[in-house]
Amino acid sequence: MLSEPIATSDVELRQWYDRVRQRTTALTKGLSAEDMMLQSMPDASPTKWHLAHTSWFFETFALKPHLPHYRVFDADYEYLFNSYYDSVGERHPRPARGLLSRPSADEVFAYRRHIDDAMLALIDTAPSKTVADIIVTGLHHEMQHQELILTDIKHALAQNPSAFSSGHASASLPTSAAQIATDSAPLEAAFSTFTEGLYWIGAEPTDFSYDCERPRHRVFCNAFSLSNAPVTNGQWLAFMAAGGYQDPAWWLSDGWDCKQKTQWQAPLYWQEVNGEWFECQLDGYQPINLAAPVCHISYFEADAFARWAGYRLPREFELEIAATQSAAQGNFAESDRWQPQPAAAGEGLKQVYGDVWEWTSSSYSPYPGFTPEQGALGEYNGKFMVNQYVLRGGSCATAQAQMRPSYRNFFYPHQRWQFSGLRLAQ
Amino acid sequence: MLSEPIATSDVELRQWYDRVRQRTTALTKGLSAEDMMLQSMPDASPTKWHLAHTSWFFETFALKPHLPHYRVFDADYEYLFNSYYDSVGERHPRPARGLLSRPSADEVFAYRRHIDDAMLALIDTAPSKTVADIIVTGLHHEMQHQELILTDIKHALAQNPSAFSSGHASASLPTSAAQIATDSAPLEAAFSTFTEGLYWIGAEPTDFSYDCERPRHRVFCNAFSLSNAPVTNGQWLAFMAAGGYQDPAWWLSDGWDCKQKTQWQAPLYWQEVNGEWFECQLDGYQPINLAAPVCHISYFEADAFARWAGYRLPREFELEIAATQSAAQGNFAESDRWQPQPAAAGEGLKQVYGDVWEWTSSSYSPYPGFTPEQGALGEYNGKFMVNQYVLRGGSCATAQAQMRPSYRNFFYPHQRWQFSGLRLAQ
Amino acid sequence: MLSEPIATSDVELRQWYDRVRQRTTALTKGLSAEDMMLQSMPDASPTKWHLAHTSWFFETFALKPHLPHYRVFDADYEYLFNSYYDSVGERHPRPARGLLSRPSADEVFAYRRHIDDAMLALIDTAPSKTVADIIVTGLHHEMQHQELILTDIKHALAQNPSAFSSGHASASLPTSAAQIATDSAPLEAAFSTFTEGLYWIGAEPTDFSYDCERPRHRVFCNAFSLSNAPVTNGQWLAFMAAGGYQDPAWWLSDGWDCKQKTQWQAPLYWQEVNGEWFECQLDGYQPINLAAPVCHISYFEADAFARWAGYRLPREFELEIAATQSAAQGNFAESDRWQPQPAAAGEGLKQVYGDVWEWTSSSYSPYPGFTPEQGALGEYNGKFMVNQYVLRGGSCATAQAQMRPSYRNFFYPHQRWQFSGLRLAQ
Amino acid sequence: MLSEPIATSDVELRQWYDRVRQRTTALTKGLSAEDMMLQSMPDASPTKWHLAHTSWFFETFALKPHLPHYRVFDADYEYLFNSYYDSVGERHPRPARGLLSRPSADEVFAYRRHIDDAMLALIDTAPSKTVADIIVTGLHHEMQHQELILTDIKHALAQNPSAFSSGHASASLPTSAAQIATDSAPLEAAFSTFTEGLYWIGAEPTDFSYDCERPRHRVFCNAFSLSNAPVTNGQWLAFMAAGGYQDPAWWLSDGWDCKQKTQWQAPLYWQEVNGEWFECQLDGYQPINLAAPVCHISYFEADAFARWAGYRLPREFELEIAATQSAAQGNFAESDRWQPQPAAAGEGLKQVYGDVWEWTSSSYSPYPGFTPEQGALGEYNGKFMVNQYVLRGGSCATAQAQMRPSYRNFFYPHQRWQFSGLRLAQ
Repeated sequence: MLSEPIATSDVELRQWYDRVRQRTTALTKGLSAEDMMLQSMPDASPTKWHLAHTSWFFETFALKPHLPHYRVFDADYEYLFNSYYDSVGERHPRPARGLLSRPSADEVFAYRRHIDDAMLALIDTAPSKTVADIIVTGLHHEMQHQELILTDIKHALAQNPSAFSSGHASASLPTSAAQIATDSAPLEAAFSTFTEGLYWIGAEPTDFSYDCERPRHRVFCNAFSLSNAPVTNGQWLAFMAAGGYQDPAWWLSDGWDCKQKTQWQAPLYWQEVNGEWFECQLDGYQPINLAAPVCHISYFEADAFARWAGYRLPREFELEIAATQSAAQGNFAESDRWQPQPAAAGEGLKQVYGDVWEWTSSSYSPYPGFTPEQGALGEYNGKFMVNQYVLRGGSCATAQAQMRPSYRNFFYPHQRWQFSGLRLAQ
Repeated sequence: MLSEPIATSDVELRQWYDRVRQRTTALTKGLSAEDMMLQSMPDASPTKWHLAHTSWFFETFALKPHLPHYRVFDADYEYLFNSYYDSVGERHPRPARGLLSRPSADEVFAYRRHIDDAMLALIDTAPSKTVADIIVTGLHHEMQHQELILTDIKHALAQNPSAFSSGHASASLPTSAAQIATDSAPLEAAFSTFTEGLYWIGAEPTDFSYDCERPRHRVFCNAFSLSNAPVTNGQWLAFMAAGGYQDPAWWLSDGWDCKQKTQWQAPLYWQEVNGEWFECQLDGYQPINLAAPVCHISYFEADAFARWAGYRLPREFELEIAATQSAAQGNFAESDRWQPQPAAAGEGLKQVYGDVWEWTSSSYSPYPGFTPEQGALGEYNGKFMVNQYVLRGGSCATAQAQMRPSYRNFFYPHQRWQFSGLRLAQ
Repeated sequence: MLSEPIATSDVELRQWYDRVRQRTTALTKGLSAEDMMLQSMPDASPTKWHLAHTSWFFETFALKPHLPHYRVFDADYEYLFNSYYDSVGERHPRPARGLLSRPSADEVFAYRRHIDDAMLALIDTAPSKTVADIIVTGLHHEMQHQELILTDIKHALAQNPSAFSSGHASASLPTSAAQIATDSAPLEAAFSTFTEGLYWIGAEPTDFSYDCERPRHRVFCNAFSLSNAPVTNGQWLAFMAAGGYQDPAWWLSDGWDCKQKTQWQAPLYWQEVNGEWFECQLDGYQPINLAAPVCHISYFEADAFARWAGYRLPREFELEIAATQSAAQGNFAESDRWQPQPAAAGEGLKQVYGDVWEWTSSSYSPYPGFTPEQGALGEYNGKFMVNQYVLRGGSCATAQAQMRPSYRNFFYPHQRWQFSGLRLAQ
Repeated sequence: MLSEPIATSDVELRQWYDRVRQRTTALTKGLSAEDMMLQSMPDASPTKWHLAHTSWFFETFALKPHLPHYRVFDADYEYLFNSYYDSVGERHPRPARGLLSRPSADEVFAYRRHIDDAMLALIDTAPSKTVADIIVTGLHHEMQHQELILTDIKHALAQNPSAFSSGHASASLPTSAAQIATDSAPLEAAFSTFTEGLYWIGAEPTDFSYDCERPRHRVFCNAFSLSNAPVTNGQWLAFMAAGGYQDPAWWLSDGWDCKQKTQWQAPLYWQEVNGEWFECQLDGYQPINLAAPVCHISYFEADAFARWAGYRLPREFELEIAATQSAAQGNFAESDRWQPQPAAAGEGLKQVYGDVWEWTSSSYSPYPGFTPEQGALGEYNGKFMVNQYVLRGGSCATAQAQMRPSYRNFFYPHQRWQFSGLRLAQ
């Protein structure tokens, strides 16, 4: 499972381990112990829980089975910080993760140091490929949780009515902003076309990938076009101005039911003040940037927008075909901006990677010949393969090292606290 | 949209109209006006509502726009018997359909006669192809509701603790039955194989079909095998005996949550009495027939069974490839038995059509190039294309005239009041 | 328990039995079998269920134990038509009463005739006082259900969007009505005063009464006043015009929560059309009669009105003190109008009985020395003595024979489908 | 409102203010900032919220209107820490109090110091009686929240599966304990009797009291008896052993519904390990003390127990009559044990005050002539006077200075996180 370019030696693995783990800690800068305990909805988890769970992963799958004489840090943690691995044992119920004032943040950081010491000791033993693969998987797992740390704390702090008065955020709602043109011109979008054919889809066996990206297989694909850039905030305001949230004609039946129940009128985190729209970002409320990709929208909204605009959502393999033609670079979490940026000027496909995850019309389902990973580690992707939809390309909160053309992210169609946007297809 | 074999002339159309409409009425034999008002859950509708809604369909789409001087039977009905056509106007809320004691069943039958008179008058005008197509669509629509009449009244009557003491049903729970062997041998199933290749999928443009079956397009398909017959009740009992309902390892995560909440321990309508299993059929409780296909199972259960058995659910195009190689014949509603029957002896694929709808792992989604039907009639398939899964092949409650290789039925993965079963794939 | 004036002889008991039972049947005039199956909410029951349950009561408590060789009509009915008597056995769940298409209304009427034949045979045996008391209780019980038949069918038919086009009701929503003066003058109400003292409260041992009205006991009561008549629709409109439904200051905390959730803006069954208010009555929509007592209001609304008006709700013994000074006469169900009527002109307390049940601020609780009725018959009042509030005086849907000064009716503070109004106290 | 004995001079008021406020802070000893943020259910609030809200009370009602040049600490706090005073303005929704990581605990303590400085300055101005009364009310209000700090953090920490490993608590679940005799002898209880008569009930006008304790008025009371001590844990185990939680005969109808839904099998915080019962206390799990009063039971359970035992719950004025005959002393919060203790040996009424709040059968309702406090301070007791039941006598978590014979506490009948028990009456 370990790809050569990523870590060809134990030295490289050690360096990479250090880098990923320190990065996680760095993301908590500006957060108090109280902030790190927040759980604002069952879908999200406290920062502290992410910090502990990623360490639990190494303890459970690498240290306990593979480091001789390993001493468990705290026997309770096995129960507290298991996420969903039934085969590992019972676990603390997800919606109650915010009730864990104990262990404290300090204790969790001590836990991380304990794990790090042991992991470095393990790496120094020149572990077998099997063990090295587990370590690499743990690092990819940790990068996934880095993204969730950002999206979950963003959601949690946004619930605070006097949000963002310190730490991560700095401003309360501004009282003026550039006027937004809501009588926007008809949607104009440039498209790139792809030819009909039989395409190979899925991960190369030599690279690191999750089981759901495998096996590589052929898909017949009609000719299609993709808009050169994701849909922007300005285009989304045009949809809103055109009554997009009021007309069931554009919506899936389940989408309309969801909209009626939730009373959505705009993307998550948007707020109107005196006719102008602001967005709650990780550093506080800011005026909407019309040129930046829209994000924090659900599948239902993305689908409605596409139908209103006269297009459709892409299928996941269409985005993969496009992605194999670009380098996996873009506005990723490493930029430390954690906010989608406007596309660069110029022709051709842009922002294929980074900025926003792009919803596809593809239900998350197994590839032909899919076999789950062996053991407890396989108790993951396969069991979520129903009722969720695939997103592609990574976001401004995704670690770049995690990204590759075959990467499949997946969420329920009503969820919108991820940095999720869309690109149009036809 | 009208296929030549079905009605090449107005005379044939008239005969076919008569036959379908009379068939609907015949299905209500043995039901009282009170029975016909039952709505046992929001998913199901009263018989009376089906009787009225199918007539409303002809009135709304054929008579009002196309029959000069047509006199509306009752202006209230437009509101009461609209199902989900937003563009036609407001509608009575679905969960409250059971609260319509008025109009009475007698009035609804009078409504049907009124519609029939007008429709035959319309057919006698030698309508244009456009109008004839609408009529044919209305008849297919009516056949869909014929199936729902059966599945909905089955569900409703089964809620009555002293169910089946008259009319449709005749027996209460028996007190003895043949002993069931629950220590069944390991699952043995014969399979038919299909070769890898590029296949055409979807409806021929010359036949009647719904918009979701179109356009015809190519799909690349790896080699695959299908079990020769659907999974039987006997095989399902083996799954139950092996603890299939108790072990999360076999279940999708959402499936296990659903099972925990619903407390499912067996297919819908099954009941254990002194260690023996009985099934509530349309004519009352009967011992389980071990050789018959299992039915009234959810997608979640079907998927868990397949995983437990070491196989998987088929994809929808795999079943379509198989279906194009068989004649569309089988145990359909016309048999008036409305219960799946054991497979015949012999080699090769059996029960491709009829007996039970077969769950597939394919999310109900648009085909490449999908275009919804124009006008209000198009307000149908497209808007349900999320979160539902495709079933193929028809059941013992489906009208045979409705069936074709490309037919796509779809339900939510938790639903099980249809005659839904499964076939294994690998 | 049998009071002398009611039935001093078996002949009188027989006549009374006949009268009460026939009255119940007479209330179903104009209702179809389909109407009689309606259950529009868990609080209400189908007419058919009331018809059967009242017969079940005689079968269970009088016939089975006391009529030799009595043949049970149908063994299933014991389960189906038990309301809440745990000691009698299991029962059909209340919210599913509307799913009983079988037994049919015809069968239920046959059941009633079977019971009547047997009951008259029992009465002809010159039963003991114990048995005669049970019969009298059964008749009082039946009168209670007569009222529920009216209130429940009113609620059920009101759910039908084309309500009242036949049978009980005859008119759809009118398009004009007398203009309503919403800028009504400040609330003026005449009051009668009562002096401080020690009063006897509760039923005399010689009269028929329910256990909750006993034992008779003394209550010390400060001086108080009662408004001479119940609050009228005109006064209620003034409350609405004054923003009574918009200002939390007048409401109990739980009441305001309830109002926010239910979105109440007026009494149940009221509807505004072009600025005029109409009321859905048992014979269809009618303009609001400003002089008639307001009804179909909850405790929460009654309490808010009283506070807004500068008064309070009466305590239950205050109304009992007033009631003992009036004859138990008024606009009861026997009038067959089933709608509250304006008070007569003149001085003094009016409408102490009939027209509307009057909410009191008294929680339904046991009197000092309360002892429940012996046996299953005692499994009634006592177990409801929490969270409900007492209403006094009877309504236009109450049988007059049922009424007496000590009668305690009780409902939850959010319920309003009874003919419930209020009188002011200070 | 200010009673002479409590604070006859500004010097005494200053001392008392200091004492109460320091006491609140002292209760947080051993709690981390993370602990103080816990909100385990909507009924409970975080410690930090209590700390801030009690300060907000002084700021809003004493400082802003009465201290010249008072500088508000933080304008946001007016919104964040308002509990239910509609007339003061909008407020943060109660169930989201646990999402306030900001302000931090440190900031809240700074807020307290800011308020204390200003309050002492205000007291030094020799305030008018009106202002002094507000200050006294604020101190009583703070004592109420002291009790809630204890009951709420007890509930919150008990949700932690590895609860009590530090700070307030010290032990995890023990693995052995003295065997409990569940085949306890029939309930034997000694009773004290009280004679029939007309009694004065309610607060003397010269003492401090809440509006709901006034006005003083007469109640006629039949002769009654009260058990000399509250029901004990040993007696409760006998109820459990006798199937008290399994037999609907003992339960109110709403109580049984509640029990079925909640699956209660024992008081809150009780847990069975290998046939022995333990109780989660503020210092960890301990074996049940059979001789101590049972607590953490709901009204429904208390009522069921009383009926099972052949008695009834007392009325609130019965307990008040008894309370006026005892000194207001007992096991209060000042003991710092926060756990009910066994009754002392000897004759006569015991534990009338302290140890456990005693449920009464009296609905919380206004006394004759009740007038709410003027202004925003009156927006309290009156609006809760529905659906709640009165408890009397104070508990081991109540400040002794708060207690008096007329004190009325009130909670919903399903709530049990307070130190609530019962005494029997007949």
